[in-house]
Amino acid sequence: MKRTFALRGNICYSKNSDHIECMEDGWIICEQGISQGVFKQLPDKYKGIAVYEYHQHIITPGLIDLHVHAPQYSFRGLNMDQELLDWLNTNTFPEEAKYIDLEYARAAYKLFVHDLACGATTRAAVFATLHVEATELLMDLLEESGIRALVGKVNMDRNSPMDLCEVSAAQSETDTRRWLDRVCDKYKHVKPILTPRFIPSCTDELMERISSIQKEHSLSIQSHLSENPGETAWVRELCPDTDFYGEAYDKYHLFGGACPTIMAHCVYSSEREIALMKERGVFIAHCPQSNTNLSSGIAPVRTYLDNHMHIGLGSDVAGGFTTSIFRAMADAIQVSKLRWRLSDDSLKPLTIDEAFYLGTKGGGAFFGEVGSFEKGFELDALVLDDSSLPHPQELSVKQRLERLIYLSDDRHIVDKFVFGNKI
Amino acid sequence: MKRTFALRGNICYSKNSDHIECMEDGWIICEQGISQGVFKQLPDKYKGIAVYEYHQHIITPGLIDLHVHAPQYSFRGLNMDQELLDWLNTNTFPEEAKYIDLEYARAAYKLFVHDLACGATTRAAVFATLHVEATELLMDLLEESGIRALVGKVNMDRNSPMDLCEVSAAQSETDTRRWLDRVCDKYKHVKPILTPRFIPSCTDELMERISSIQKEHSLSIQSHLSENPGETAWVRELCPDTDFYGEAYDKYHLFGGACPTIMAHCVYSSEREIALMKERGVFIAHCPQSNTNLSSGIAPVRTYLDNHMHIGLGSDVAGGFTTSIFRAMADAIQVSKLRWRLSDDSLKPLTIDEAFYLGTKGGGAFFGEVGSFEKGFELDALVLDDSSLPHPQELSVKQRLERLIYLSDDRHIVDKFVFGNKI
Repeated sequence: MKRTFALRGNICYSKNSDHIECMEDGWIICEQGISQGVFKQLPDKYKGIAVYEYHQHIITPGLIDLHVHAPQYSFRGLNMDQELLDWLNTNTFPEEAKYIDLEYARAAYKLFVHDLACGATTRAAVFATLHVEATELLMDLLEESGIRALVGKVNMDRNSPMDLCEVSAAQSETDTRRWLDRVCDKYKHVKPILTPRFIPSCTDELMERISSIQKEHSLSIQSHLSENPGETAWVRELCPDTDFYGEAYDKYHLFGGACPTIMAHCVYSSEREIALMKERGVFIAHCPQSNTNLSSGIAPVRTYLDNHMHIGLGSDVAGGFTTSIFRAMADAIQVSKLRWRLSDDSLKPLTIDEAFYLGTKGGGAFFGEVGSFEKGFELDALVLDDSSLPHPQELSVKQRLERLIYLSDDRHIVDKFVFGNKI
Repeated sequence: MKRTFALRGNICYSKNSDHIECMEDGWIICEQGISQGVFKQLPDKYKGIAVYEYHQHIITPGLIDLHVHAPQYSFRGLNMDQELLDWLNTNTFPEEAKYIDLEYARAAYKLFVHDLACGATTRAAVFATLHVEATELLMDLLEESGIRALVGKVNMDRNSPMDLCEVSAAQSETDTRRWLDRVCDKYKHVKPILTPRFIPSCTDELMERISSIQKEHSLSIQSHLSENPGETAWVRELCPDTDFYGEAYDKYHLFGGACPTIMAHCVYSSEREIALMKERGVFIAHCPQSNTNLSSGIAPVRTYLDNHMHIGLGSDVAGGFTTSIFRAMADAIQVSKLRWRLSDDSLKPLTIDEAFYLGTKGGGAFFGEVGSFEKGFELDALVLDDSSLPHPQELSVKQRLERLIYLSDDRHIVDKFVFGNKI
């Protein structure tokens, strides 16, 4: 693959959350997978470089999905008339238990990876199941797809059905180490991430063991936090010694700091939890569609942005029914408006600029310098053709992007680059 | 066109709001455009009838859009960071003013009608602009498309910009009568509907004149009601002699009863307004996406269903950014969950069965016996191919429909019938 080239077209990207940078007929230079910046003219030193000419198309950074459950893709759009805990027991756990069967896992994971590959996502933080073999299979498929992913074998040793519960914390540790031995150095684009499911599914002993593994391997972790009133009440019962949910991770050093951490949801985070997330640099995966479908609520994203915290978007399939992060941007704006109207008019709704930032540079930061076209960023790019969304009036590049955020689907994606590779 | 035939496939339709009727490999008989019902086997008396074999596909009634603004289609998905009244002044009125130019209107309305024709909608209640010629042009285009529509030339003679305001109530009446003379008997599938924009745009004198026209022609009417806090406060100022917004229509006999009426939104209807809507048989067009995008709020649909009121769904383009009524079903469920969580947990979220009913039989009732496959109903049908939404497990017909509601787009529509005509 030529990883040194120029992209020419109508360019949109974020430097910060306030404002989308738009350039009509601009150039992005990619050298060895790294952006050298955005230019109005092709700089002299790059004359003769390979050029992808995208004429009227729109070029944006690849989108970042900070929270998605691969095994739940099979039942996306089904059985959403329940709240989180009932939904987990009725839909999720029985489905995830099937992934002990590698043939089932292969059939199901192929569909998930195909969807991700056809869509706008270039990087994802993915939950698998507790099964070592199926998780490795998912990682194999993701590696083939060219998408960059962090994938977690799930840890869960309590409050789970017999067929989806590790028999002991020790066994969970053994399996996790066996999985890490197999996958740590196997892939170029896919890496493991430690994945305790959530506090209700993990004994203290298991958290202790995960913490040891984390320190040994310097792995990042992903989990769930303060998603739903029923869940948060349960965590308070389970952890009488902690003042807030996040502390139940933090006491095992699995809450940011030296341990890069994604916490999904953060709908009901208390002031102290928010302060600790900020202090520890925890990444928040805002999952507006899932929080809506499971009647969880609406996260105070404005608060997180105002506090300059790390935050990106998650599809949270199958709490969310689509893997589309453009849809997550639109959803994030929409629910922020309803939150403003119904709950708290001190928190202004999100703008299109902010939502675009969240789905690109905001989430991308978990993967390094990712999610923008600024100089030094790993070049993930989407090329979008909006000609099937005709309009009778003139539109600016930014307006065209806005319509793509609300109206596009995989048909509009012409090309996709991940770290300088066209996939 | 053969209007007598059978459709064979997997059939889904509503008899009531509680339950979607699903039949695997069933038959719908259509005689002269009218459904003769749904059968497990082809009845003997119909042996030899023409048969459309749809094998694995799903067949549903056509979808009903009770509220859509054709001239706003051009700016769908744009500039939604505003509330209703600002949005009208900034985006809507300047765009609608362009429709004095027939060439612009033709270019824009072609796009709208093409979208509707490619989508799942078979009947729609449509706002045009105040322009007689452009409204007739829109009706010509809709007639050609085969979709059945009620289309309204808008009346507005106050609180509107110079270039989108009728000069007097008398002129508005004259134009409306001229329009009616031209269109009343012109079409087979398209009919006029009286369309006072909303109370803030219509003087008392204009309402009086519209009322006379309504009585003479026995036309139905469509307008807006109790959409947004700013708007409802304004109406209270404008109509100090009325106790609630709906009364401002009712005093001119333009609120149900002998005058079949659609009122869009009804987010902030008071108990007395609700009681009068019920008494008068007013149809509510619930527009969840628009009410979200314009930060209006969430209508208490559960209350309307529990009161056995007439209610259907509206896309409300361009308050809504899509014409899809499948999307409106999903949105209706989603916002009802957020309303339950954030505002009022006495009103249970909508189920998938209820949302499907709203988008088919609920709204269809405004057009007569429309929106179901029960015997005697005008046969509008959609044939949906969900094979591009693969799944590793077995799914029931109802589960497949549920996924289509959340995940389908125009690619999934194989065929569409309106009143027995394949279009």
